[in-house]
Formats: sequence, structure tokens, C-alpha cells
Amino acid sequence: MVVREAIDGQLYLEQKRQLTDRWLEFFLPPGDEDPQTLHQVMRYSVMAGGKRIRPILAYAAYEYCGGDLTGEQPQPIHFAMAALEMVHTYSLIHDDLPCMDDDDLRRGIPTAHKKYGEAAAVLAGDALHDIAFGLMARTGNIKTVIELADAIGTQGMIGGQNSDIEAEGRDIDREGIIAIHTRKTAALIRCSVRVGQLLAEAGPELYERLSIYGEKIGLAFQITDDLLDIEGDQELLGRTIGSDDKMKKATYPGVVGVDVARNDARKLISEAIETFELSDRENMLCYIAEFIGKRTS
Amino acid sequence: MVVREAIDGQLYLEQKRQLTDRWLEFFLPPGDEDPQTLHQVMRYSVMAGGKRIRPILAYAAYEYCGGDLTGEQPQPIHFAMAALEMVHTYSLIHDDLPCMDDDDLRRGIPTAHKKYGEAAAVLAGDALHDIAFGLMARTGNIKTVIELADAIGTQGMIGGQNSDIEAEGRDIDREGIIAIHTRKTAALIRCSVRVGQLLAEAGPELYERLSIYGEKIGLAFQITDDLLDIEGDQELLGRTIGSDDKMKKATYPGVVGVDVARNDARKLISEAIETFELSDRENMLCYIAEFIGKRTS
Repeated sequence: MVVREAIDGQLYLEQKRQLTDRWLEFFLPPGDEDPQTLHQVMRYSVMAGGKRIRPILAYAAYEYCGGDLTGEQPQPIHFAMAALEMVHTYSLIHDDLPCMDDDDLRRGIPTAHKKYGEAAAVLAGDALHDIAFGLMARTGNIKTVIELADAIGTQGMIGGQNSDIEAEGRDIDREGIIAIHTRKTAALIRCSVRVGQLLAEAGPELYERLSIYGEKIGLAFQITDDLLDIEGDQELLGRTIGSDDKMKKATYPGVVGVDVARNDARKLISEAIETFELSDRENMLCYIAEFIGKRTS
Repeated sequence: MVVREAIDGQLYLEQKRQLTDRWLEFFLPPGDEDPQTLHQVMRYSVMAGGKRIRPILAYAAYEYCGGDLTGEQPQPIHFAMAALEMVHTYSLIHDDLPCMDDDDLRRGIPTAHKKYGEAAAVLAGDALHDIAFGLMARTGNIKTVIELADAIGTQGMIGGQNSDIEAEGRDIDREGIIAIHTRKTAALIRCSVRVGQLLAEAGPELYERLSIYGEKIGLAFQITDDLLDIEGDQELLGRTIGSDDKMKKATYPGVVGVDVARNDARKLISEAIETFELSDRENMLCYIAEFIGKRTS
């Protein structure tokens, strides 16, 4: 049973990753349409691959909350999936800029500014940020637009990235690093879950419960990310290992040590799964939580 | 009569500029709230002044189309006014970056990256871009969000800025410069008019007519901007004169000459005013069109 579940989970992730890619391909402006270079930079960064964990979470939450999956394509959830991945990619492009984290490699290929120059990278990030809101609005559900704006604003992703830069080389405690990671990473992951719920019109009790789930797996995701930057496989990850240390980044294992970090990530995953009734844990959201705890890329 | 109208117009612009500033002050996150520095950069750039022509246009269009101005404050139009000015400021911050137009002075004070560094400028621009969508969504009218996203995407403002950079030092014809200016500047100005109309629930005929008005004054605005970069007063403008020439920017007077440019701007203003019936030209939208044609800053 456990083995079968695991295989189904892997298949589900792979299928939804492909589904995400299909809609990203569909919603991204064509590379041969003007402005061609700009569209090509956007496509280069978005289609470079990635786990597509945010759109998959939105989809799984939508499905879990009984969202309708019949009817004409694309459906609101498909717009939202593409929007979430575009927002994530915009944040990676801007974070990789020389004035920010100054990264050369992302998803196994040169970063956008390395390949196309800084101006193109700034604009491609801006364009993805913009198009994401256009797609989210096209779900027809204005609450999802507000949810997205709040999740990636100064109290969310951008605020977290700002604190992340400000914390470089400084002493920080556990509470401080949790505050950064919660905004930098967990906010958009929780938002992905919430957008799926909003589109499925989940009731308030379920909404609150899955929001806690989203926040916990979001924080676990970033702790695992920090751990992979120390002990991960550069080939699998597709980015430079040890860059946190090089940049004197504040990281979770840097603050509490590798063993405690690994343990805390595991605890967060358990708590996320425990937001579901014992009899209701054979669902994809629980599988994704476990996957995040075990991920190697 | 003409003199009285002119004075009323000036008063209107001044009052609505103050109204815009009041709501910007209200909607911008406080500078003493975390992340403090980021909020301070956002405030520094937004509150540095400016004509606030986009929010004023939205307000005037809203009023012209019979939008309701009674009831509890803030109203949807106020959210939209703040959103439009924040989007404009985000675009200025990113355009001023060293990798883009590399400007040191904006609205009479050092540009955001000159004062706070590049990373802070990129993030403050991103945050204003984001908060603008949050505010626009809070109008409760999803069409305004889609209108904004389309106006500032790759077929609008960002696409125009991209072409503007790509055209530096290259030969370009009149059609080419019109295509750049229409996207870079006119798209957001037309969007401002349209957002006012959408919130006032203008009918389709009026909507189309004022959209043409918006596009024409938008193009005239950028031609005047190019002219001011040649012959304007640096003190009044609050930015470095002659920077287009230094950057080998494609400009309208650069392509057709100063006299033809001045004439074309005048013609566009007339055409904008002619979208109104002869008996219906003593309104603020017509006054603003004339103001744009004559502006010195």
C-alpha cells in the first residue's frame, strides 16, 4: 500500500508538472512575436524547468477542496497555475541579478542576466510579474489577485528577500531566520494552496486549516533548500552549491546547525500532515508534504 | 471666459494632485513599519512629487462618465488613483537603474538607486508594482486589473521600454518611434482614462471614444517629453536635460525634427479634443489635453 501510494504520488507530480508546462507554453507570449527578445528571455527562464511545486500545490488543493475539473479549457485553475509559476520565475530572475544574489546558474543553465544582459533580465522579470497578475485576474476571482498581491509584497516575498539581503553577514537568531523564510518562501507556497482553495470555493474552516498546512510546508521547503545548499548535489539542483555560505547568507542550518534544521523540517512536515484527520491522509497534499521533506532537488 | 476656465483648470489639477498625494500617503506602507528601509525607499520615490497626471486623468474620466463621488472613503477610484501612480513610479525606478537609462536625478532629487543602492531600488520597484495590483484589485472591479496588466505588459509599457533600449543608437523612422512611444507612455495614460471609465461603468461608445482620446494625449505627452529634454528647464523638470541625446535615444524630434514634432503634438491634442462634441469641450479632460500640450515640466 505504501509503495503503491508512493508510485501514484510520483506519477501525479510528473503529470501535473507536464500540465503546468503545457499551460505555461500556452500563456507565455510567443518568442517570434514582438518584442521578440523580451519574450525569448521570459520563455528561457520560465521553460528552463523546475519542479513546478507551486502550481501543483494549487491544483492539488483545488482538487482536494472539490474544485470542478470538467468543462472548457483553460479553466481558472490553469490560469492560476501559470500565474504562480511566472511569479516564482520573476522572483528568481531578480534575485539572481548582480546587485542581489549575483548567481550565474539557475535550473542548470546560465541565469537570465548572464545570457541576455541585466536590462533584459530586469524587464523580463517585470513582464512576468505583470503577466502573472493579468492571468490571475482572468480566473475571474478577484480574491485570488488580492491573495497573490499580499503574498508577494513587502509583508511577503519581497519583504523576505529584502530582509534576506539585509541579514547577510549579520548575527541572527532562530526567530529571525524563521521570520525571513516565512516571508521569502512560505508566503507564496501558502498562497498557492490558498488560490486553489479560493477557486474551489472552500469553506472557512477548511481554508484556515489548509493555510496552516501551506505555511508549514513552505517553511520546511526553505529549510530543506538551505540544507541542499550545504549537502545537495549540484547536478541535481541545477545551481551552484555553497552560494549561501559564500554570500554569508542567514540560513536555517547556519543558525541552529544541520541536525536541528533537518529535525525541524521533519517536524514541520509532520505538523502539516497532522492538519488532516488521521483517516484522511492518503491524499496528494500529504504526499506533496512528504515529498518536500525528502526532496533532493 | 477662456481666462476663467484656465484658472479653474489649474485649480482642479492642483486639488486633484493633492487628493492623489493624500491617498498615496494613506496606501503606502508606513516608513516605520518593517521592512522599514524598503518602505522608506518606496515612499522616497513616490512622494518625491510629480504632476500625478495619470491618477488625475482617471479621476477626471470617472467624473466625466458620471461616476459616483459620494459615500464612504476611500472609494474604488481612490484605490485606482494610487495604483496608477505607484505603477508609474515603479517604472521610473527601474528605468533609472544603471543597466537601463542610468539616471542620477529624478523629480529633482537623486534616483532611488543613487540614494539607497541598486538592490533596494529593484525591490522597491517590484514592491510598488505588486502593491499597485493589490490596490487595483481592491476596487472590486476585475476589469481594471486586466486593463492595467495589459497596459503595462510586453504589448504596453514594458515592451515600449524594451524597444526604447534596443533602439538606442539605431536608425528609426517615424512609424518606429510612434510604435515605441505608444507602448512606453501612451498605453498607461490611456489605461488611466479607461480605469476611470470602467469604475464609472461608461457605456461602450463612450468607452471607445475616450480610449482614442487617451491614446492621443498619451502620445502627445511623450513627444512633449522628448521636446522638453531638448529645450526644457532642468530646474522645472527636476531631471537632467539632454540625457536622451547622451544615451543616443530614439526620440520623436530626433526623427522628424523639433518643428514637426511640436506641430504633431499640437495636432494630436486637437484630435483628442475633437473626440468630444463641439458643445462639450468645456470639461476637464479637454483642459488636461491642452495642459499636456503646453506643459513645461
